[in-house]
Amino acid sequence: MFSPLIKELMESLRCLPGVGPKSAQKMALYLLERDSQGADRLANALRDALDKVGRCATCRTLTEDTECSICLDQARDGTRLCIVETPADVIAMENAGSFDGRYFVLLGHLSPIDGIGPEELGLDRLENLVRNTDVEEVIIATNSTIEGEATSHYISELLKPLNIELSRLAQGVPMGGELEYVDGNTLALALKGRKKL
Amino acid sequence: MFSPLIKELMESLRCLPGVGPKSAQKMALYLLERDSQGADRLANALRDALDKVGRCATCRTLTEDTECSICLDQARDGTRLCIVETPADVIAMENAGSFDGRYFVLLGHLSPIDGIGPEELGLDRLENLVRNTDVEEVIIATNSTIEGEATSHYISELLKPLNIELSRLAQGVPMGGELEYVDGNTLALALKGRKKL
Repeated sequence: MFSPLIKELMESLRCLPGVGPKSAQKMALYLLERDSQGADRLANALRDALDKVGRCATCRTLTEDTECSICLDQARDGTRLCIVETPADVIAMENAGSFDGRYFVLLGHLSPIDGIGPEELGLDRLENLVRNTDVEEVIIATNSTIEGEATSHYISELLKPLNIELSRLAQGVPMGGELEYVDGNTLALALKGRKKL
Repeated sequence: MFSPLIKELMESLRCLPGVGPKSAQKMALYLLERDSQGADRLANALRDALDKVGRCATCRTLTEDTECSICLDQARDGTRLCIVETPADVIAMENAGSFDGRYFVLLGHLSPIDGIGPEELGLDRLENLVRNTDVEEVIIATNSTIEGEATSHYISELLKPLNIELSRLAQGVPMGGELEYVDGNTLALALKGRKKL
């Protein structure tokens, strides 16, 4: 019913996460009917980002500069390195506001089935980084999922010989969590990790 | 925290309907981390659509051709014309499958506060179309909202002198609607428009 270019726009909007055929149709028609300026800005932003955004030479996060703003910030504590899966995780940690060290961004987790091994996650570069800079503690903050745990395990085995402190984010009952509604696995972890008072 | 180009991409994704700051961040990072091919396709589709999609010379719907496929279809009944607000409404009517006439797409509704008057909706062109072709019945299918009703009223006043049949989509209880859950205004309309058995 729609002409080919409009159909193609709808189809290609579906590459966005959480956008199904119905939303894609709504978005495409909205852009064409009412916000061609916004669409133009979006097309330019996509093109610019695709052409120029690469990875930080040190921490591998997404940036269009050689090094990201956190790696360039001399005020940060270079002795502590936090390993996260994605740039969004860096933001989450920064928003928590209690870490002032540096980051290393894996951009994923180990997933042999998708062809993502240690090399794709830049683990060789991580090893060099830890070896050649004054990092004293590595905090592994991969997700608390099966893949995140496996990645965490692999990294800890990799870095153990380097004689640095290695830690993993604590697992347990979230702040404000009511025991009644916390799932069994989390409770089991909280119990296992209980702290002496 | 993000570099300028990534921020600009997030900002510009927010022009999409239903996309807030959180989804925009998720979308931007997803595209850059994992689907640069999709992002490239989207950028091209946006550019193409912006450059080439215009309005059908007859019915004003969105298309990159001079006339849309429905207007070009000789098999359709040229004596009946259905007036709708948007191209999505054309699709909804076509999916209902019980109308084989032609359409006229307003691309909006009367909204003086946004500077949308009869001219912006192409009502002069509508009048000419009805006057100069063999249209016998005009079905006004604007939305059942205050704006849609006002637009419907304006159009009916405009076309009354042309000596054609004018009708409006029926309002009432939707198919499968249980009275208990139908809102009062709809029930009042259904009662007002009751049919003799």
